[in-house]
Amino acid sequence: MSDCAVVLVSGGLDSATVLAIARQQGFRAAALTFRYGQRHAVEIEAARRVAQAGGAVRHEIVDIDLRAFGGSALTSDTPVPKDRDDLSIANGIPVTYVPARNTIMLSFALAFAEVLGSGDIFVGVNAVDYSGYPDCRPDYIAAFEAMANLATKAGVEGRRLTIHAPLIRLSKAEIIRQGVGLGVDYGLTSSCYDPEPSGKPCGRCDSCHLRRKGFADAGLADPLG
Amino acid sequence: MSDCAVVLVSGGLDSATVLAIARQQGFRAAALTFRYGQRHAVEIEAARRVAQAGGAVRHEIVDIDLRAFGGSALTSDTPVPKDRDDLSIANGIPVTYVPARNTIMLSFALAFAEVLGSGDIFVGVNAVDYSGYPDCRPDYIAAFEAMANLATKAGVEGRRLTIHAPLIRLSKAEIIRQGVGLGVDYGLTSSCYDPEPSGKPCGRCDSCHLRRKGFADAGLADPLG
Repeated sequence: MSDCAVVLVSGGLDSATVLAIARQQGFRAAALTFRYGQRHAVEIEAARRVAQAGGAVRHEIVDIDLRAFGGSALTSDTPVPKDRDDLSIANGIPVTYVPARNTIMLSFALAFAEVLGSGDIFVGVNAVDYSGYPDCRPDYIAAFEAMANLATKAGVEGRRLTIHAPLIRLSKAEIIRQGVGLGVDYGLTSSCYDPEPSGKPCGRCDSCHLRRKGFADAGLADPLG
Repeated sequence: MSDCAVVLVSGGLDSATVLAIARQQGFRAAALTFRYGQRHAVEIEAARRVAQAGGAVRHEIVDIDLRAFGGSALTSDTPVPKDRDDLSIANGIPVTYVPARNTIMLSFALAFAEVLGSGDIFVGVNAVDYSGYPDCRPDYIAAFEAMANLATKAGVEGRRLTIHAPLIRLSKAEIIRQGVGLGVDYGLTSSCYDPEPSGKPCGRCDSCHLRRKGFADAGLADPLG
């Protein structure tokens, strides 16, 4: 499966876009989703829809339980913050930060890629609109790639593993425009950190605010309303 | 918990030694064990004994299921090889290699360390007696540490995270001598890749052969016989 790429699919707007980009670049996509004890399990159903609509040839959902450690509003009983004024890095690392989340998810992607014989992993991290997370920065992705190339059979045998983070320097509006251009149906995605049981977004968490601003800046209507 | 270190404890000989080394260096130890769908679940019970006897102040057991991906004799239905003549790297990467296993385990350790406010992770990787695994080499550990320092709040805030791999250049005999010097009870450990249901080692897998040779080279008797 050398033309196969592992694509991390959370069910959100960014990963739906990344899946479309990987497919446009000619990769067959093996989607990988995590059920990590988060409140917003609605995301898992969104991930299934996104992977299917995005033409993934395979979709694995892996359970990882970070609740044993605690430490984040997304995995513990800390309230998800609502209607924050300042979403920039100047405001510090948000309480919704999950410790080492991207490192853990990329590590599983690395295992999956190795089993598939794939040398390509796509991930929708983004350093612009949500730069409060340390593991969304370009130098972090470069360091993970360097480590990954020493960690695996492929690395030992001289085959190169590449971490693709095609959204890392894009604004939310640019991501949305690119996705719409590739035919992504954002009506299938779920972005909210604290959705209602029906799946309806709260409209007030950081993620909902960023999504609303992204569609507004792009001059497009969010199909989720 | 700045004097606290996360110690990966598998229940084997190496990690029992590492726990003793971390304690000797003055750290309080938070032990971390993985249940990763392996056949040798006997290891989990060994890990509990080792963590308790080694004075760990906390012990978390995290489930990670690598079977969804397949790819190793330790997690799939491929037979564990017995009585191999050549255990060196010249013989290639063994089929018991679990894809990205150390990367996944160290990633969870990173999350645990971050939640504890700890800047130290101890891991019993060893490049000498079992150098067929790419993720047991010193340059891999250095690359993981570099990545980890970019991945987390601690890194962003200028606190240093260190991956300690004190066994990495030691022979099995040297590890055993050091552990015996620190009072480790190797009778509590389990090394076999394919133990009997009672926990009795098979005596014939690579791990059993290496353990036997280690005790013989150290001139010591294995309390497991």
